[in-house]
Amino acid sequence: MTYRMVDLIQKKRDGESFNKPEIDWMIENYVAGSVPDYQMSALAMAIYFKGMNTSEISNLTMAMVHSGKEFDLSEIPGIKVDKHSTGGVGDKVTLILAPLVASFGVPVAKMSGRGLGHTGGTLDKLESIPGFNIEKTEAGFIEQVKDIGIAVIGQSDELVKADKLLYALRDVTATVDIIPLIASSVMSKKIAAGSDAILLDVTVGDGAFMKSVEDARILARTMVDLGKSVGRETVAVITNMSQPLGYAIGNRNEITEAVNTLNGKGTAEFRQFIAELAQIMLELAGDKKTIPEILQNLDNGLAYAKFVAMIKAQGGDPTAFENLTAPLKTKYKVEIRASKTGFITDEKALGVGVLAMKLGAGRATKADTIDFEAGILLAKKVGDKVSNNDLIATLYSNREISEELISEFNDSIVISDEQVHQKEILEIVR
Amino acid sequence: MTYRMVDLIQKKRDGESFNKPEIDWMIENYVAGSVPDYQMSALAMAIYFKGMNTSEISNLTMAMVHSGKEFDLSEIPGIKVDKHSTGGVGDKVTLILAPLVASFGVPVAKMSGRGLGHTGGTLDKLESIPGFNIEKTEAGFIEQVKDIGIAVIGQSDELVKADKLLYALRDVTATVDIIPLIASSVMSKKIAAGSDAILLDVTVGDGAFMKSVEDARILARTMVDLGKSVGRETVAVITNMSQPLGYAIGNRNEITEAVNTLNGKGTAEFRQFIAELAQIMLELAGDKKTIPEILQNLDNGLAYAKFVAMIKAQGGDPTAFENLTAPLKTKYKVEIRASKTGFITDEKALGVGVLAMKLGAGRATKADTIDFEAGILLAKKVGDKVSNNDLIATLYSNREISEELISEFNDSIVISDEQVHQKEILEIVR
Repeated sequence: MTYRMVDLIQKKRDGESFNKPEIDWMIENYVAGSVPDYQMSALAMAIYFKGMNTSEISNLTMAMVHSGKEFDLSEIPGIKVDKHSTGGVGDKVTLILAPLVASFGVPVAKMSGRGLGHTGGTLDKLESIPGFNIEKTEAGFIEQVKDIGIAVIGQSDELVKADKLLYALRDVTATVDIIPLIASSVMSKKIAAGSDAILLDVTVGDGAFMKSVEDARILARTMVDLGKSVGRETVAVITNMSQPLGYAIGNRNEITEAVNTLNGKGTAEFRQFIAELAQIMLELAGDKKTIPEILQNLDNGLAYAKFVAMIKAQGGDPTAFENLTAPLKTKYKVEIRASKTGFITDEKALGVGVLAMKLGAGRATKADTIDFEAGILLAKKVGDKVSNNDLIATLYSNREISEELISEFNDSIVISDEQVHQKEILEIVR
Repeated sequence: MTYRMVDLIQKKRDGESFNKPEIDWMIENYVAGSVPDYQMSALAMAIYFKGMNTSEISNLTMAMVHSGKEFDLSEIPGIKVDKHSTGGVGDKVTLILAPLVASFGVPVAKMSGRGLGHTGGTLDKLESIPGFNIEKTEAGFIEQVKDIGIAVIGQSDELVKADKLLYALRDVTATVDIIPLIASSVMSKKIAAGSDAILLDVTVGDGAFMKSVEDARILARTMVDLGKSVGRETVAVITNMSQPLGYAIGNRNEITEAVNTLNGKGTAEFRQFIAELAQIMLELAGDKKTIPEILQNLDNGLAYAKFVAMIKAQGGDPTAFENLTAPLKTKYKVEIRASKTGFITDEKALGVGVLAMKLGAGRATKADTIDFEAGILLAKKVGDKVSNNDLIATLYSNREISEELISEFNDSIVISDEQVHQKEILEIVR
């Protein structure tokens, strides 16, 4: 079957739905270059206004999956569970969650994307470990998971070719924030990566892509239904990203927090959050565990051992972590203190994240390099009581920290008389 | 001032309006090639859904005008009036109207576009006159109008460069039928062509681009306000294009009908229609004339003399018209006769137009050549009484006329018991 792309654009513009052959034709020809960008961007804008139904989204996702390499992990025994976060500020979850889940004998074969962000992604953090190699052949990847039960590598360039083209196009045509396209982008990569089940962390709030719980719920529901419709058991948690995750923002800071958490030295709230995510992943793998049982593996060294095994298997030097207790050696350091007594009622994730980026911890453009020492250590979080002049946070940078940046940070912090509490997991969508 | 195109696309997508510097920047950079097609097509689709306000449309139009050559007709004394039709089936109006208006001493300096259509455009019809030259330098064009009061030439390639790019892009991205973009496309060309006042013929119905009077009214109102806002007095007539205009469809047929009308041999309804349009153009030039006064110039040979003067001035051979009375010499000829007694209540312009194209009278693609003899001569129009077996129309073609084409034509003709009357001019928008 062949089509005229202009007719398909008009069809969507007029609110009609695509069938599978139409979507297959479109994606095939877009990747082949015979459907040009200027038609695809017009279509994306029409989808912004007219949406896509469940069957269109799953057809689109599978057409995208077929546009690139599909990993076959069936050689690895057991139910493989993958995890994806829609991104946030201070998100070091994968570094802890993957070894924690693997420490229960559930195989974790994970590919991470790089992406732009307020701080580097999981890959950047792993690469900061001397010698650590994020590139593996498919065979080497499978071998490592069979061998030690865990591997976290960079996403193959061969994966979901349509997504690379589409994402770059959407980025410059104001068609990024379209739920059907976000869902198919995320899920096509997860499906092509070959795991049997998927845990999705859909972040919501100031520092996340989804600004409202309603939107996050729609995205989560869309992706969960999509995963199920193509035979991958999928659960989504909607998590609060109105304040940063944990206390550390910045690459070395976040690795330190991750390693501490893996060594049983995490803060209570953060440990609980990680354990709840692990519980869902274990359940997806057919392994029911209680929260105390899961926390045990953070305290008894099993999760940390798995982490170290992975570092070694991928050529990294685990002694690097021995220096983590040394103080950060940035050229500039500024302590932020409370201007009055009260409770922290807001610590805006977006403001804190953008500031961390300006301090050097993240990339504004793909060409930027990351300063691994730069970042922010929070001393207080939402709900904490502060007295006047108490330390709230420390900013670290190798660039001079201007008064303007300090005032920007202060604008992100709200101290009030009334105490509020923020939950990390807001909802679970199954 | 500089902008990021992605921000401007998002602005429109979110329903906001552009200011003049934003629109100027966009069009300048689009023509320069630094805003790529894939951003412009996404913007066009956003405009489809979110529209543009009056000031945006006039800023867009003027930015487009400035993207190419602007003609200065000030050397020609008097108020120059231009005329544009949004197109229809059997539209030979310019061939009659231009010399008729010029015969009253009002200068007509007209540039015609070529365009695709069911039959050739005005340019194709003029070019069918042996020796007739549609290309003139600006100086030669002005000289001719000063000299004999009339010139109809091909639209300069230098005119409104942005429109050429935009139109080609809209054509393949399902963004053609957007009133603000149609209005700015039409009006930018009229404004750049330099006349002081503009008569717009906004066709409506089956055979026109606008299918409903409501849409035609919005387009007419948009263009009239736009013309006025940039200092060009503009009037629009909304004309009925549910049946073909006049009796002739096809190039030689239409020239014959035009010449006959210029010689006082037109049908009453068509003469009246032409005279009403001429009355508005004359009024725009400050010359009030009654309908009988105007019809006089069709009967006394003055309008025809102006037409002949133009043909000669542009190198054409006016003796060509002496052969017009000879029968059409196409290889195939089919007479369509009434299948019953009654009144013609519908003669679908679109069906008749498409059929004329299939007979060879028009171009389906730019590369097609036109058969000047091919076409349709109507014997009856809507409102006429027919007896069973009366001649309704004759089809002429140098290609074999299949039973399928004949049945397509018959599908366009409706005969009923009740008589209906169709007006040509439905509304005037000032």
